[in-house]
Amino acid sequence: MKNIKLTVAYDGTNYHGFQEQRGTGLPTIQEVLETTLSKVAQSPIQIIGAGRTDAGVHAQGQVVNFRSDKWPVPTEKIHLALNTLLPEDIKIVRSEEVSLDFHARFSAKAKTYRYSIYHHRVMSPQHRLYCYHEPRLLTVQAMQEGCRYLLGTHDFKCFQAQGSPVKDTVRTILRAELVEEKPVIHLYLRGNGFLYNMVRIITGTLLNIGMGKIKPQEMEEIIASRKRTLAGTTVPPQGLCMMEVEY
Amino acid sequence: MKNIKLTVAYDGTNYHGFQEQRGTGLPTIQEVLETTLSKVAQSPIQIIGAGRTDAGVHAQGQVVNFRSDKWPVPTEKIHLALNTLLPEDIKIVRSEEVSLDFHARFSAKAKTYRYSIYHHRVMSPQHRLYCYHEPRLLTVQAMQEGCRYLLGTHDFKCFQAQGSPVKDTVRTILRAELVEEKPVIHLYLRGNGFLYNMVRIITGTLLNIGMGKIKPQEMEEIIASRKRTLAGTTVPPQGLCMMEVEY
Repeated sequence: MKNIKLTVAYDGTNYHGFQEQRGTGLPTIQEVLETTLSKVAQSPIQIIGAGRTDAGVHAQGQVVNFRSDKWPVPTEKIHLALNTLLPEDIKIVRSEEVSLDFHARFSAKAKTYRYSIYHHRVMSPQHRLYCYHEPRLLTVQAMQEGCRYLLGTHDFKCFQAQGSPVKDTVRTILRAELVEEKPVIHLYLRGNGFLYNMVRIITGTLLNIGMGKIKPQEMEEIIASRKRTLAGTTVPPQGLCMMEVEY
Repeated sequence: MKNIKLTVAYDGTNYHGFQEQRGTGLPTIQEVLETTLSKVAQSPIQIIGAGRTDAGVHAQGQVVNFRSDKWPVPTEKIHLALNTLLPEDIKIVRSEEVSLDFHARFSAKAKTYRYSIYHHRVMSPQHRLYCYHEPRLLTVQAMQEGCRYLLGTHDFKCFQAQGSPVKDTVRTILRAELVEEKPVIHLYLRGNGFLYNMVRIITGTLLNIGMGKIKPQEMEEIIASRKRTLAGTTVPPQGLCMMEVEY
């Protein structure tokens, strides 16, 4: 029996997310990967993903694993074999054999997400599928200041989509940083785990700070309140990219 | 009578180039712009483009102009009015009124193109529509050296697509520079004019240098030979972007 870990990059534009959540007919990343792996293995393969990205969300470093007792391809050649079979918008970046107890989701120690904002009067057509467009004036310095209150271990219930069944909403944020590559502003968040829609709601809250609707230090009060209604809107999915999973 | 200059950005993926060259049924950038402008003007508008980009080629700074004696929108609001009507993959970046003798093509003094190479073992799904994938080893230093021979006024017949009717193949290259944003390598070319497929054939030739198939100084001999067969292949369109037109 082998346990294989794959690092996967994808353009989420044409998929209904990593794992289908409701019956929609649109393909999912998981479906395409499982179909392709099963074809290579000539037996059904089921994968475990580190995180379930939503429709339109991208990945540069999603991690999946699968077990197989008759996997026919040498580990170092898996990415070559699979990439010729996979569509252009899903590619295997790395493949490695891991110990049998490795679990892409439960073994993860930290994840890094990036949210990208195209900050310019007119949206760039080439960025439209990978950035959120914000044409209004933003004070990046204030947003950077707001980021500081995210660091550390907090109850982040205010940043969880309403209706989520998750009860333990305490998470640790290890990095919260804005990196400007004008006219794009990237928000990097690294943490031991993320609640549903957490990165997108944090971005919406930071945009409120950037536009001067709230002060940077109000971030502290919003977190303490545990009230979703005090945080910002959930910004759209296409700006979000799963960058890395650490084990 | 007004003469209006528009700076246009587009994602060329879903278009058969700026101007249709053969009957294909696919839409062109020019068609979409003229249809939208004619709708706003409530009379037929014909545009002149600075350059005819091929199918799959992008633009951040294509320039077009059109004349109209009953144009109803104040110049400073044209981009707002048009961008709400245009599809997501074509946007007006800037609009200005210019003198009646301004001609987007004939008044152009210099143009800048960028060709982007994704230099990594595995292609990134998010870059697939905007970069050419080159997984082989490249010595960027040697390519940079090869660029030096492009500078100045030369007969660039070797870099013109075979069968092109253009007879005067002398052009002046003002900038030829590689800028690395790992893993992407951008080639910037600025010149007073470009022959058909010139940027894509120069890129193919520089890749031959990067892979060690030819030496940087052979660039000089290739140019002097005026032989298309000595230059590299025409790399695919999606890596090409029209960046700027100067007047």
